Amino acid sequence: MTANPYETDLDANPANYEPLTPISFLARSAAVYPGHTAIAYGDRSHTYKETYARARRLASALKAKGLKEGDTVSIMAPNIPAIYESHFAVPMMGGVLNALNTRLDAAALAFILDHGDCKLLMTDREYSSVITEALSLAKSNPIVIDIEDPAAVGGEFIGEMEYEEFLATGDPEFNWSGPTDEWKAISLNYTSGTTGDPKGVVFHHRGAYLAAMGNVISWTLPKHPTYLWTLPMFHCNGWCFPWTITAVGGTHICLRKVEATAMYDAMQRFQVDHMCGAPIVLSMLINTTDENKAKAPHGIKVMVAAAPPPAAMLAEMDDMGFDVTHVYGLTETYGPSVCCDWNTAWDEKTVEDRAALKARQGVRYHAVAGLEVMDPETMTPVPHDGNTMGEVMLRGNLIMKGYLKNPKTTTASFEGGWFHSGDLGVVHEDGYLELRDRSKDIIISGGENISTIEVENVLYGHPKVLEAAVVARPDEKWGETPCAFLTLHDGEAATEAEIIDYCRENMARFKCPKTVVFDELPKTSTGKVQKFVLRERARNL
Amino acid sequence: MTANPYETDLDANPANYEPLTPISFLARSAAVYPGHTAIAYGDRSHTYKETYARARRLASALKAKGLKEGDTVSIMAPNIPAIYESHFAVPMMGGVLNALNTRLDAAALAFILDHGDCKLLMTDREYSSVITEALSLAKSNPIVIDIEDPAAVGGEFIGEMEYEEFLATGDPEFNWSGPTDEWKAISLNYTSGTTGDPKGVVFHHRGAYLAAMGNVISWTLPKHPTYLWTLPMFHCNGWCFPWTITAVGGTHICLRKVEATAMYDAMQRFQVDHMCGAPIVLSMLINTTDENKAKAPHGIKVMVAAAPPPAAMLAEMDDMGFDVTHVYGLTETYGPSVCCDWNTAWDEKTVEDRAALKARQGVRYHAVAGLEVMDPETMTPVPHDGNTMGEVMLRGNLIMKGYLKNPKTTTASFEGGWFHSGDLGVVHEDGYLELRDRSKDIIISGGENISTIEVENVLYGHPKVLEAAVVARPDEKWGETPCAFLTLHDGEAATEAEIIDYCRENMARFKCPKTVVFDELPKTSTGKVQKFVLRERARNL
Repeated sequence: MTANPYETDLDANPANYEPLTPISFLARSAAVYPGHTAIAYGDRSHTYKETYARARRLASALKAKGLKEGDTVSIMAPNIPAIYESHFAVPMMGGVLNALNTRLDAAALAFILDHGDCKLLMTDREYSSVITEALSLAKSNPIVIDIEDPAAVGGEFIGEMEYEEFLATGDPEFNWSGPTDEWKAISLNYTSGTTGDPKGVVFHHRGAYLAAMGNVISWTLPKHPTYLWTLPMFHCNGWCFPWTITAVGGTHICLRKVEATAMYDAMQRFQVDHMCGAPIVLSMLINTTDENKAKAPHGIKVMVAAAPPPAAMLAEMDDMGFDVTHVYGLTETYGPSVCCDWNTAWDEKTVEDRAALKARQGVRYHAVAGLEVMDPETMTPVPHDGNTMGEVMLRGNLIMKGYLKNPKTTTASFEGGWFHSGDLGVVHEDGYLELRDRSKDIIISGGENISTIEVENVLYGHPKVLEAAVVARPDEKWGETPCAFLTLHDGEAATEAEIIDYCRENMARFKCPKTVVFDELPKTSTGKVQKFVLRERARNL
Repeated sequence: MTANPYETDLDANPANYEPLTPISFLARSAAVYPGHTAIAYGDRSHTYKETYARARRLASALKAKGLKEGDTVSIMAPNIPAIYESHFAVPMMGGVLNALNTRLDAAALAFILDHGDCKLLMTDREYSSVITEALSLAKSNPIVIDIEDPAAVGGEFIGEMEYEEFLATGDPEFNWSGPTDEWKAISLNYTSGTTGDPKGVVFHHRGAYLAAMGNVISWTLPKHPTYLWTLPMFHCNGWCFPWTITAVGGTHICLRKVEATAMYDAMQRFQVDHMCGAPIVLSMLINTTDENKAKAPHGIKVMVAAAPPPAAMLAEMDDMGFDVTHVYGLTETYGPSVCCDWNTAWDEKTVEDRAALKARQGVRYHAVAGLEVMDPETMTPVPHDGNTMGEVMLRGNLIMKGYLKNPKTTTASFEGGWFHSGDLGVVHEDGYLELRDRSKDIIISGGENISTIEVENVLYGHPKVLEAAVVARPDEKWGETPCAFLTLHDGEAATEAEIIDYCRENMARFKCPKTVVFDELPKTSTGKVQKFVLRERARNL
């Protein structure tokens, strides 16, 4: 048998093959839009040409410090230029970017610095105290670079050089080369982990490239968007948006602190047209003054993910003139990887029905090869009846490389050729899926599954309720019963009976909370309610 | 030295890796937009669910006929559903699609069937005569399937089965699998070849996937476009648009014959919003009745490539309310791979200046790693002076796998790690490039290079000129001089002297045509003027 001619003398070579990497987006935007503003932060701004030169300086400075391919570079910073630049500079010299969650305590940071084998750490002055403590706890001994930002509150320099000074040692014409293999690691993101040690999710160049392309296509991002950052870049690499917005030559608008007034001021000043945010950010936009609300240009496109936002919140955003797209993803899927593609036939529905539809999911990004809701025991898809719950599973090019130094969990999460998300959902007749809960959050009462998200959605419909979180409370008779933790709008008061009555009018009786607690909700840095804290409180009631 | 942990226990597996292939776009659109119209042709139309079932039937029918991975399947057809379906069905069963140029003669077709080792040929009834002759000349003996289209003119069945009958033998639930390697061939396109034997350009799955993504992003294609086909799908796989439009769940509007009235009727009937076309198509849209023009919805986006369209043509399209984007590419680059990204600062220029700017190029698709205009001898980039000519070179993931069974030409075209396009251009100060000529078309007169495109652009500015083509005419004194071939608008007449005078008023004297011929222009099937024919005529004047 002769060789197939399609496989003969037709090999990859430098002319027709290059490993995919999102670093290329910065080089391209610097070449074709050199004068366009890449990033604006307070009164600073940098064009693409400047940002590219700064990133090349940083890459070459890191290399000169002895960093080499496969080395981990950590950064502790809010959304300021240094962390944006690091998303390109660190992989440019072959390093792996590990952006640290700024709300972690010293012990957690020390664990991450050691587990990720950090070789160099850049840290914003404001965090010098917790970082100093973390370094004293950690076994690793990284080179430390301080980042000075006049807006930082307190702290002091603890490293050997300041960031701008460090940049000045670098070469703005540094001749970087992309990865030799697109499967090489580009970043390391520790999941916020509500229990146990954090897991280090490893991204590769190929996945980051395809995730950025996916954000552009699924959101129909035009060229040159003006994008307001609310999501921390340290969270899942800001859902890959440092790369995404750069790919389309957009302008990154950064804020050191995410507050309603700061966000609305930036929307007005920069005429923002796109932003992403967790439901907590939507809540901040909704619960503010009319003066603030008047500042927003009409029709800002908002991508919202994390927990499924309550329908009432989506309806309110719609009323305010924001154009919300609901997406779904996890750190393990490079952030958003499934979106609620709007069906124009839904335009004529009521605002409530539209919001309920908007909370659904189902349209996978192009690079996601498969999306199913399955019984994890049998790996068979659930019926499309809008009722039978199963675990959301995904596979394809938007799934992480795996968990660092954790083969057991990596293997378990990829069992059967699918990534097991740990999220529970149902599939509707039209094929759209609706998330119901994290598998560990589900309440089993008298043998019936109760979705805490479903109960929360009803609670959000109550006019006095600002925030709601529902968890299981142990019960001798039923096994578990729903327990609701609520905060109310300013100046409002409510009784437990009033809330329970409202629930009974709006949902099946067995799903109604048996207990209602009015109390502040504990949250992670990304605004997710820490249900494990609430479960503990419910247990001790 | 211990192994790098980022390279340990983090291998690709079925959960987190899948070879890129554009076949996946049809499966995805069938899953998420099952009821949306995928294709409309005359009074026929198919939803995505139906198209996917038909493609799976075809793939399984091909497999049942004994076709296997790496086998070539040819198709001879205008833009009808069968050729669209083949773009998915053939690679679904591992085959390589070879769409034949319907205007080729029997000898050229026989060469291609033999060179590509065609195993199965699907042919529209209208072409039975030329195909019968080609098969009698060819050494290969493929299985022949007839395609019956009531709109076909003449011809007869020459194969063993009709296409719909063949489909009926297939399984609509065929369990296809994508390529085992994204570098595997997906299609084989013979360049129209103005001289010598045609060369077989091989595309791979990865490149076709990235080209389709590039079309979506560079053109900011929204979801569900209504796309009018004017470009033949047999030409460079219709610039990858069978895959591109499917990726965004759009509707393909097909025409058997591309004529002004048929195009305008389809625009009106289907409310077309996007289309691609060669300059010849723009010329047809411009030179028609006002009645036809009134049918077009305002603001149709038109992607135009092939030869740089004359500025006068772009200005006219602008006036008529079409939104034209000028792109550049070759079959070897999967079609468009560089585009003229519009700078909003240009909006205020005059319509002529805008048209001149629109004819420039420069913004490479994301998957193009490099784009330069270089001296092919030294491989150094030309200065950005808008004047110094060099050869356009590209490299990266949008460059073909190579030429089939032609290692010598493949190697030569990839020399120095760049694909040598054979096109000549200059680079302006702002980094945008402007195509000046095919390297074989350039005129050298008295030692000075003259761009035939530049001369043609001036000629198109003359109000009586409908079409212009300039070639070199041998000259004892100057070596070569420009010779213009013109057609005029209906009812117009002009003299050679009048045309030459006009040129002298509008360009450097040495560039002006010394000879003007009023005659019909010979064209390839895609509307490109066959300059080698004109050079021959000029030589014999």
